[in-house]
Amino acid sequence: MNFLSDTNPGGILKQIRDNSPLIWNISNFVSMDIAANALLAFGASPAMAHALEEAESFAQICKAINGVLTINIGTFDKNWQECAVKVANEANRANIPWVLDPVGAGASKFRNQNASELLKLKPTVLRGNASEIISIAGNESGGKGVDSTSSSNEALDAAISLAIHHKIVVAVTGEVDYVTDGNKTLSVHGGNIMMTKVTATGCALTCLIGAGLSTKQEAITTTANIMGIYSLAAEIACKNCEGPGTLKPKLLDSLYNMTPEYVNENIKISKI
Amino acid sequence: MNFLSDTNPGGILKQIRDNSPLIWNISNFVSMDIAANALLAFGASPAMAHALEEAESFAQICKAINGVLTINIGTFDKNWQECAVKVANEANRANIPWVLDPVGAGASKFRNQNASELLKLKPTVLRGNASEIISIAGNESGGKGVDSTSSSNEALDAAISLAIHHKIVVAVTGEVDYVTDGNKTLSVHGGNIMMTKVTATGCALTCLIGAGLSTKQEAITTTANIMGIYSLAAEIACKNCEGPGTLKPKLLDSLYNMTPEYVNENIKISKI
Amino acid sequence: MNFLSDTNPGGILKQIRDNSPLIWNISNFVSMDIAANALLAFGASPAMAHALEEAESFAQICKAINGVLTINIGTFDKNWQECAVKVANEANRANIPWVLDPVGAGASKFRNQNASELLKLKPTVLRGNASEIISIAGNESGGKGVDSTSSSNEALDAAISLAIHHKIVVAVTGEVDYVTDGNKTLSVHGGNIMMTKVTATGCALTCLIGAGLSTKQEAITTTANIMGIYSLAAEIACKNCEGPGTLKPKLLDSLYNMTPEYVNENIKISKI
Repeated sequence: MNFLSDTNPGGILKQIRDNSPLIWNISNFVSMDIAANALLAFGASPAMAHALEEAESFAQICKAINGVLTINIGTFDKNWQECAVKVANEANRANIPWVLDPVGAGASKFRNQNASELLKLKPTVLRGNASEIISIAGNESGGKGVDSTSSSNEALDAAISLAIHHKIVVAVTGEVDYVTDGNKTLSVHGGNIMMTKVTATGCALTCLIGAGLSTKQEAITTTANIMGIYSLAAEIACKNCEGPGTLKPKLLDSLYNMTPEYVNENIKISKI
Repeated sequence: MNFLSDTNPGGILKQIRDNSPLIWNISNFVSMDIAANALLAFGASPAMAHALEEAESFAQICKAINGVLTINIGTFDKNWQECAVKVANEANRANIPWVLDPVGAGASKFRNQNASELLKLKPTVLRGNASEIISIAGNESGGKGVDSTSSSNEALDAAISLAIHHKIVVAVTGEVDYVTDGNKTLSVHGGNIMMTKVTATGCALTCLIGAGLSTKQEAITTTANIMGIYSLAAEIACKNCEGPGTLKPKLLDSLYNMTPEYVNENIKISKI
Repeated sequence: MNFLSDTNPGGILKQIRDNSPLIWNISNFVSMDIAANALLAFGASPAMAHALEEAESFAQICKAINGVLTINIGTFDKNWQECAVKVANEANRANIPWVLDPVGAGASKFRNQNASELLKLKPTVLRGNASEIISIAGNESGGKGVDSTSSSNEALDAAISLAIHHKIVVAVTGEVDYVTDGNKTLSVHGGNIMMTKVTATGCALTCLIGAGLSTKQEAITTTANIMGIYSLAAEIACKNCEGPGTLKPKLLDSLYNMTPEYVNENIKISKI
């Protein structure tokens, strides 16, 4: 099942815990708490800093100590978007990897424009759900955007198209997760549908992918590994919870207690 | 005890779960997380979007797919208030039901003005605690506002007065909850005092009332039913928690695991 | 061990619960939820209000009913800083005690300037971690700022220097906590390292110190007592959790269930 079984996917978790990388997040108001806590549970060191006035300082720190940036447009207004664009440019200048989460792309012209403007700045990884990825791909080619009922196959086509066009890695989360660089595509199995009943679990994953990128390993494999680890944590947490309320703290516990050995034995990644 | 026992109050829960309505929330920074999670646990689909630039888009989506708007002034500054007024006007133009939560009304002239300006735009339902409702009613008639030690009877008079004056439904939460349209008044019993030790449980209820309004049933009965269901969930959660920390996740679990049958057998609503 | 054992440190908890003081917080986006819930669990009454337009109103309320202000710069942009400066000035005019939390001081020039500007307004208590306190002290004397690997001895020197220079109480949290007024220094033992894996636990402590100051007892002793109570709650919560996810709700439960008797028997404060 796991074509990466000979590559020590659990090693990425060990490397993050050993190095405690700084992950700088321009996040949304709803996800800040779970994202910061997921990063801490994973062994990373989160910083939630979005002031225009300190973009350069944080970019310099990230450059100096091997940090990573994540940008999540979930509750942006035009000031936050302006800041995100500046921050992404700073990251590019300093050669800092960054991840883009286009929350709600397709729901408004404003979100589409924000996502599109940031996408042109070439994030290392773009992560969204099926609707968001399809919307962004459609938007770019003059399409109409939102389609929350699309199949994952259609999202996969959109993801591959975006990856080729922008020369980036694109990750689509859903019942099965996909990661593609346009050439190679990996699928990640596992997780639990109850995760969709806890707000911002996708946003938290985006931040964990950022933690993965701090390891400087190949982006597509790293992203698949992080998604696989997150799915394992979700499975364990769902077995031990009584609903989405207790799922959230137990997900964080599972991330904290996850071992590289368990990851290597159970992660479910395939090449397709 | 329950004069609505012949009206299938649990049916509202079933209808929400079947339709997964979009609830668009202009919420406050403290309540966004619990509000989004309560809506998800209830079966609704929350969107937390407050940018002035996308008000029209979200109003169009809500109109198209039977969504509802909620506005919570808890952490407003003048920009958020400006956005909320625009959004409420968009909602009215599109005939979208909306709920107003006047958090902290009475604590500052600024909040009183914000609440008053939004109230004039005729929310479908106004929901507040006793102090807030009394303050708003007093403010309107030139009074001084805040009185956190007022009795629920006084809050009830204020609620009825506001309901008549604005031709809206007014809900007051407290040891006993009241809902009135100025003509008919319902009381909802149940709940647990420990709920007041978890921040933003009232804000989350406001959003759930929004979910209830998506069913297009009579606003006063719908509001009472949602308050009754929330009280049942609170009772179950309080029995199973060790303090307000574990109460919060268990409240979300209870909302998620609530059944229409349990609601119909246990909800405690009376006409007064 | 506890030189304060003859002074009834648990009495401060009783006094807070008896009076339910208003604690007005200009907090950061990440910490608002846990801070508000910690204050509620402790028996205080939190208000998260940051609009420039209502600074004067809240200062008047605090003055009238013996409230306290806390300011946390964690996610400030220039508008929030402007508001915080106005609010701190209002607090000083009204003789309201206030606590400053200089989150991330040292990470950017912008944060250093914000912290420095607020420090000049003489908070009753400044609370930070070792890096923040060292950075602020260094910044003041023309140093470079950040040093996250400094020893607690160095942080203690910095704390004493800041306390003397500004004539305030300075608290440094870490494996051992220190509180000093420049003349007398107290150490607080206890707590658990897993607390560093939950975001904003330090921010929540800052707000609880605010609750302590409402008792109008000596600031240095009060601050040490609150830190000691928080450490006891952390110890109990860590024993009963399975990771940082469940630690957070259990910490709030522990704060809620803490008794003055347990505090008096177990608090670990020494004079050094």
